[in-house]
Amino acid sequence: MNKKVLSVLVDNTSGVLNRVAGLFSRRGYNIDSLTVGETENPKYSRMTIVVSGDDDVIEQIIKQISKLEDIKRVDLLEAGNSVTRELILVKVKTDAAQRQQIVAMTEIFRANIVNVAKDSLMIEITGGPSKISAFLSLLEDYEILELVRTGITGLSRDTK
Amino acid sequence: MNKKVLSVLVDNTSGVLNRVAGLFSRRGYNIDSLTVGETENPKYSRMTIVVSGDDDVIEQIIKQISKLEDIKRVDLLEAGNSVTRELILVKVKTDAAQRQQIVAMTEIFRANIVNVAKDSLMIEITGGPSKISAFLSLLEDYEILELVRTGITGLSRDTK
Repeated sequence: MNKKVLSVLVDNTSGVLNRVAGLFSRRGYNIDSLTVGETENPKYSRMTIVVSGDDDVIEQIIKQISKLEDIKRVDLLEAGNSVTRELILVKVKTDAAQRQQIVAMTEIFRANIVNVAKDSLMIEITGGPSKISAFLSLLEDYEILELVRTGITGLSRDTK
Repeated sequence: MNKKVLSVLVDNTSGVLNRVAGLFSRRGYNIDSLTVGETENPKYSRMTIVVSGDDDVIEQIIKQISKLEDIKRVDLLEAGNSVTRELILVKVKTDAAQRQQIVAMTEIFRANIVNVAKDSLMIEITGGPSKISAFLSLLEDYEILELVRTGITGLSRDTK
């Protein structure tokens, strides 16, 4: 079971997210993450969906999504031919010594400290999957108070 | 009509996205963007939803989401008490002169060039809503080939 990234161009209608979510729910396909937002053209939105499954399941999902109303195009983003990125905000509990350690870590990872409170720091980090998971594994030594991730988004490298 | 950011903590089940999307679709509420991903606790996911509506509508939406199955908590993220961020990937058509102009722009905005092709550049930019829209308005002078945005994600500043 590997994770695959689907980039789905859809009409910007209020029902389309419902149809896509309904398909995954009915079929029991697991969504690891989903982002949906505007594109270069206000008529369309682009969903990026990360799903787990073997190749047969992914092929089925692509077929079934393509058949739904308001779907313009479904692309599989693969590591070689695309750029994938994710943004994470994480609030970490810190005393004075820990604060220094975490500031040093964020510099190494080119992350940003976006809020400082008396007993916590909030960090913003952006990157591909391997950078993000390396950073999060270093944070395991600290107490994470809250974490939110956008889920992966991506674009193909080629010029269509 | 203003845009509001809702942060919704949910059980990590396959049906919960479907229920939330269904509520918005049935009621005709417009979702500007939605992100859903894992949290610090694998039992839960966090959705960040940007909706347009006046205060009464937003209050209704919060009430109705709160009643759905698998919803743990709904928070309204307001500018003063939270940090909101979005990640955008944008592929811009470029000749040699435009390439130089865009590289200069990305430096000013601390954006990153993540792919260079013969006739295009791909830029990654992260920021709050005003930074992102300032950057996108400068790009209007160029031909945007593809653009994908994660949608806004955010965390409250306080330590709960």
